[in-house]
Amino acid sequence: MTSSHPPLPASPDAAERAHALLARMTLEEKIAQLGSSWPGSEQAEGDVAPMQETHLRAESFEDAVVDGLGHLTRVYGTTPVSPADGRARLDVLQAAVVDGNRWGIPAIAHEECLTGVTAWGATVYPTPLAWAASFDPATVRLMGARIGSDLRSLGVHQGLAPVLDVVRDYRWGRVEETMGEDPHVVAEIGTAYVEGVESAGAVATPKHFAGYAASRGARNHAPVSIGPREFADVILPPFERALQTARSVMNSYTDVDGIPAAADTNLFTSLLREQWGFEGTVVSDYWAIPFLHSMHRIAADEEAAGVLALHAGIDVELPHRMSFLGLAEAVRAGEVPEALIDRAAERVLRQKIELALLDIADEPRREVDLDSPANRVVAVTLAERSIVLVKNGGVLPLAPSLRRIAVIGPTADDAACLFGCYSFPNHVLVHHPDTPLGIVAPTYLDALFETLDDAEITAVAGTSVRGGETEGIAAAVAAARDAEVAIVFVGDRSGMFGLGTSGEGCDVATLDLPGAQQQLVDAVLDSGTPVILVVSSGRPYALGRAVGEAAAIVQVFFPGQEGAGALADILTGRANPSGRLPVQIPTRHAPQPGTYLAPPLALRSDGVSNLDPSPAFTFGHGLSYTRFERRIVDADTTARTEADDVVLAVEVRNTGPVRGADVVQVYVSVADPSVVQPLRRLVAFHRVDLDAGQSAVVELRLPVETFAFTGIDLVRSVEPGPITLRVAASADDDGEARQIELVGERAPAPSPRRRFPSARVR
Amino acid sequence: MTSSHPPLPASPDAAERAHALLARMTLEEKIAQLGSSWPGSEQAEGDVAPMQETHLRAESFEDAVVDGLGHLTRVYGTTPVSPADGRARLDVLQAAVVDGNRWGIPAIAHEECLTGVTAWGATVYPTPLAWAASFDPATVRLMGARIGSDLRSLGVHQGLAPVLDVVRDYRWGRVEETMGEDPHVVAEIGTAYVEGVESAGAVATPKHFAGYAASRGARNHAPVSIGPREFADVILPPFERALQTARSVMNSYTDVDGIPAAADTNLFTSLLREQWGFEGTVVSDYWAIPFLHSMHRIAADEEAAGVLALHAGIDVELPHRMSFLGLAEAVRAGEVPEALIDRAAERVLRQKIELALLDIADEPRREVDLDSPANRVVAVTLAERSIVLVKNGGVLPLAPSLRRIAVIGPTADDAACLFGCYSFPNHVLVHHPDTPLGIVAPTYLDALFETLDDAEITAVAGTSVRGGETEGIAAAVAAARDAEVAIVFVGDRSGMFGLGTSGEGCDVATLDLPGAQQQLVDAVLDSGTPVILVVSSGRPYALGRAVGEAAAIVQVFFPGQEGAGALADILTGRANPSGRLPVQIPTRHAPQPGTYLAPPLALRSDGVSNLDPSPAFTFGHGLSYTRFERRIVDADTTARTEADDVVLAVEVRNTGPVRGADVVQVYVSVADPSVVQPLRRLVAFHRVDLDAGQSAVVELRLPVETFAFTGIDLVRSVEPGPITLRVAASADDDGEARQIELVGERAPAPSPRRRFPSARVR
Repeated sequence: MTSSHPPLPASPDAAERAHALLARMTLEEKIAQLGSSWPGSEQAEGDVAPMQETHLRAESFEDAVVDGLGHLTRVYGTTPVSPADGRARLDVLQAAVVDGNRWGIPAIAHEECLTGVTAWGATVYPTPLAWAASFDPATVRLMGARIGSDLRSLGVHQGLAPVLDVVRDYRWGRVEETMGEDPHVVAEIGTAYVEGVESAGAVATPKHFAGYAASRGARNHAPVSIGPREFADVILPPFERALQTARSVMNSYTDVDGIPAAADTNLFTSLLREQWGFEGTVVSDYWAIPFLHSMHRIAADEEAAGVLALHAGIDVELPHRMSFLGLAEAVRAGEVPEALIDRAAERVLRQKIELALLDIADEPRREVDLDSPANRVVAVTLAERSIVLVKNGGVLPLAPSLRRIAVIGPTADDAACLFGCYSFPNHVLVHHPDTPLGIVAPTYLDALFETLDDAEITAVAGTSVRGGETEGIAAAVAAARDAEVAIVFVGDRSGMFGLGTSGEGCDVATLDLPGAQQQLVDAVLDSGTPVILVVSSGRPYALGRAVGEAAAIVQVFFPGQEGAGALADILTGRANPSGRLPVQIPTRHAPQPGTYLAPPLALRSDGVSNLDPSPAFTFGHGLSYTRFERRIVDADTTARTEADDVVLAVEVRNTGPVRGADVVQVYVSVADPSVVQPLRRLVAFHRVDLDAGQSAVVELRLPVETFAFTGIDLVRSVEPGPITLRVAASADDDGEARQIELVGERAPAPSPRRRFPSARVR
Repeated sequence: MTSSHPPLPASPDAAERAHALLARMTLEEKIAQLGSSWPGSEQAEGDVAPMQETHLRAESFEDAVVDGLGHLTRVYGTTPVSPADGRARLDVLQAAVVDGNRWGIPAIAHEECLTGVTAWGATVYPTPLAWAASFDPATVRLMGARIGSDLRSLGVHQGLAPVLDVVRDYRWGRVEETMGEDPHVVAEIGTAYVEGVESAGAVATPKHFAGYAASRGARNHAPVSIGPREFADVILPPFERALQTARSVMNSYTDVDGIPAAADTNLFTSLLREQWGFEGTVVSDYWAIPFLHSMHRIAADEEAAGVLALHAGIDVELPHRMSFLGLAEAVRAGEVPEALIDRAAERVLRQKIELALLDIADEPRREVDLDSPANRVVAVTLAERSIVLVKNGGVLPLAPSLRRIAVIGPTADDAACLFGCYSFPNHVLVHHPDTPLGIVAPTYLDALFETLDDAEITAVAGTSVRGGETEGIAAAVAAARDAEVAIVFVGDRSGMFGLGTSGEGCDVATLDLPGAQQQLVDAVLDSGTPVILVVSSGRPYALGRAVGEAAAIVQVFFPGQEGAGALADILTGRANPSGRLPVQIPTRHAPQPGTYLAPPLALRSDGVSNLDPSPAFTFGHGLSYTRFERRIVDADTTARTEADDVVLAVEVRNTGPVRGADVVQVYVSVADPSVVQPLRRLVAFHRVDLDAGQSAVVELRLPVETFAFTGIDLVRSVEPGPITLRVAASADDDGEARQIELVGERAPAPSPRRRFPSARVR
């Protein structure tokens, strides 16, 4: 694995073979390659996809394979099956697929894999928001490779991840699935995940292309109000970058200014294919094609929806054929040119050829260990690096002399609170209460008992995550009073479609902690015992009085099965916190939508509006048990707008007492741009580990197109004039600034961009 | 005054004279016509405009008039002056202007006039949201004529109203200044106001062009995220219509997708001038030009901001010259073509000539009565028609037998709670506590004492509007217990920039009633005495338990000085309520932004999101003391897309016991549009008064372009296919539906549209 992964060229041989094969296939055979089948979906308990109950009237598997089959949906991810049983079933299904068509073409098997393979017994990694908090693409790349390898070990070819949506509104339920509110962070971390998965030979599927996270009122699936500049400069960049490596992409459910992605020819053909040169496959999000009829109502029926989607550039209908069932008739009726069928089918066939599906009748079986020691090392490393020390009055790390500790709160002793909504436990197993977890996942309380074995720990939940009960708060306060320190665990329990406080469909109206948790926190604060607040959540919450009054605040985004141990290590000082906030922690009066990436008038709190948008803790913020000093030691002063690099060298010194990691952050501010620009925008970051007293020089190389933005003419360009680069500890930190003069004419930036900011220790 | 007002043609003579005059003027003289002066602004107490303190460093009046002067700012609207004193001062100032320039050209004097002339002692009419609630353009037109006439009686030529922003987010402070969330209602009612003002010879100034109400997070001045289709179909239509009559327009402060309106050449030149053919003047909102530098930061300094604005098409800088002070130098330096100066100056001169400013040295003085009986008749009529009976379990009208009535709540006995934020009392007088109100404005309590003279009324505030005090709630509950019925008055006290709970700058994070008012309501509900909840507010609020438990709910939008009497008449049955909701009344879990005008996926509450956007009471809803039956008696079944009318005849019958007014509402739903469309959209309405037992046939004529919307190609067009027209009592009411087939090719709609839905009683 290398840190920069070149785009995968389409094999000319594969293209040729696909073309030749296509020429000999019947219309029905070609169309069959554009569909999927979900055998076993009728056995699924509860919803694993939106409005499943209304759309699960698929053709039978037997009917689906008559002319071949494009995809096989979630053989492992629908009900709990052991890897061996799942593989046996997959083998039977694939044999039926292969036997069912003249050409012996197997299906591409796909699964969800966002926080690890969504299969029973597979390692559950931290949630993507935690990946982002690590600011550590290298470890995310390792995780991606583990996930890709595990998928392939199961006979699965494609994983439906990562989520590259840029957060615009913290109320949205799927914030936990994203890499936060900064497009550069999402692009860097998301691409690292993609490179990892693809390096293992599995197909990564960035989603949701594009605009999904900006839905109105933060309601899942609601329309997106956004203009073309914001769309180009905030929403698209992570896709533009990751799709140079990923071999598939999935559409967004939403409409953007009236055009649903699944019907958007400009997006999936003009931009994706013609401008960006993407050669992989486009798969639909589950039922997104029939939704063009039933939800968006721009198609008269499901079949018309299929025609719209195919025309726009959707190649494969997931999770099973519905709208595409009408394609053959539409071609025969002259409503759809067969060339559109060929275009999609050729892409699918080429991908199957590149995956060697047509060559290897029976891939050599590898040992399957979905929760290997190698996985777990990555899981714990990433969890530890993702934990953000937000505030510390000195109470952390915990003094070894502490004897009486109260552990309070509803997220302290519930393993489900460690996992994201697309983890197998919270996504599928929640509907199978009699099936064991299949992995070892100590709770935060377990880990504290284990780590603090000299201390007397009293544990009281106080309330549930969202039930709102207050009866237990008195006992929690009593426990706090009896203790030297109270560690209060609050936050989310993730789930889907109403089952969680975070997760798909679990949108919220306010950013108050769910249920009675803020009351619990306030009551414990009133006890007088110092409070260490640990927020374990899928979105940032307004923390009320705790912002000012807690002795320490730690933000954990669902850290996965190894997360509790990582947290215990951080709390005790065995590990030094190094996470940074990939989303702001707001106040309860900060209106949404609103993130750090905004122009001055979105950030002002005086004069024009009595709503103060200032966060409690800003983007990029995170403390350490040591101290760092940063100094710009070298910086270019000019760069040509057309093609140039700005090089910045930053010396970072660990001036504190222990080893730790700093995240060097570089923000740009553009002076007098032609259109309104963010006050500050992150353009580069680099994580650097340093022993106490050690220093290093980090060299950051910023291609000039990094400073491009979309102008009045809708062309993304680099404008001449001064820019300010700021090396800072967070978006609010003035840090050290240098002015760079961009010289020359306004110059269009290449699209797709091929050069990105890079950093190395000199 | 006619109900359809033809566009005012520019007088060719005026154009010729302006052109000839311009040719003889110096550069400085021409530039002087583009500025304003605000003598006396230094005496203003408190802010009457955003960030006034930072921008009030104007040139002196003496300096400003050296070469002439374009405008005179707020001679009456800055501090409390009597009409006579104000006129005397205006005369002195105008004499100085006239004497100061070679051509003897006076200034255009402008004032605010949204809820009446913003001058001491002038009638305060209902707030625009109340105009909309009346669904009564005819009375609004009368009010506009009264306002225009009063302006002219003061020697004022231009009024800076109306606000044509379409509500997108109820949290925004300026919702009270708008005509609600439906573009057709805003266009109809707003144009009626404009026609009234212009009919009296005053210049109306629709604002804020365009996009202001859609600011992110509902924060005043925050950026607007919106795409071109939503902008064209929701934001622009009221302007497109009203600017066929109004002779001036004012820019929005905000940027739309990165482009501040004051620098938007596409908006102010390509669209406004070239496409719509607008020939009036464009005036800047106060300091909006220097804001291009200081707030939007797209100009290097204030002078560069002036160049940007002039180039975009802003003609006059308000409230005083600042950025335009640099224009002469910019022209001399070759940075600005003198033709741009000429373009703007010619528009100003032409308007002055059309206003006869150059011909009538001393206009004959009219008697000034800013609060005439004629004004007050209009004020009370409009107030009465704007009151919305939202819920009625039968307790209203109040039984004459009632003897003990509790009047509770902080808005019951405070005249300031009757007025909008741009009223003279709440805008200016609030800073002059020793100056009397200058008008008679009984409070709700006063009016109830007056009207219910047989009953014993106990009045208890219970809490303040936003202080959050709860000590007084017990007394309120006690009063309720002792009464047969409790009338609870809650809502807003309007003000600006932090002084109110509604009004410019008074944005909110949630839609809960301000302060402890919901607690007060809940406590009185718990008393067991039937509660009549009167919400007197500038925005809709989530009313919590009251939605289910109140015996009746009445929604009043600041009704002006005559509003309390109107309300008392409604409560007692002397008048029959006929208002309809121009904004929805939301629940507290309905996320914002979000209004009724939305496609299905913005309105769904099942399956995809656990946030239910359903309102407590929908758009268009309003009850009466009588009953109406509506029946479609005739309807076209087809219409040609290119040019046609759809005629619908609706018989309305008053089947209840008393005279009353119904508002016939017609909603369109488009089947299978090419881009996502609102589920239902109001296309016509007509208010009709009927005696008990009486019926009338209302004929609605809908030009086919009424059904146009902006397609994928960004062309607003009528698409062939079926549409459904629904005659209904509100947006949620299925009513009676008819399908109309639009036949022909997709046809571009004219822009500007010249034909609009009309209605008449047959």
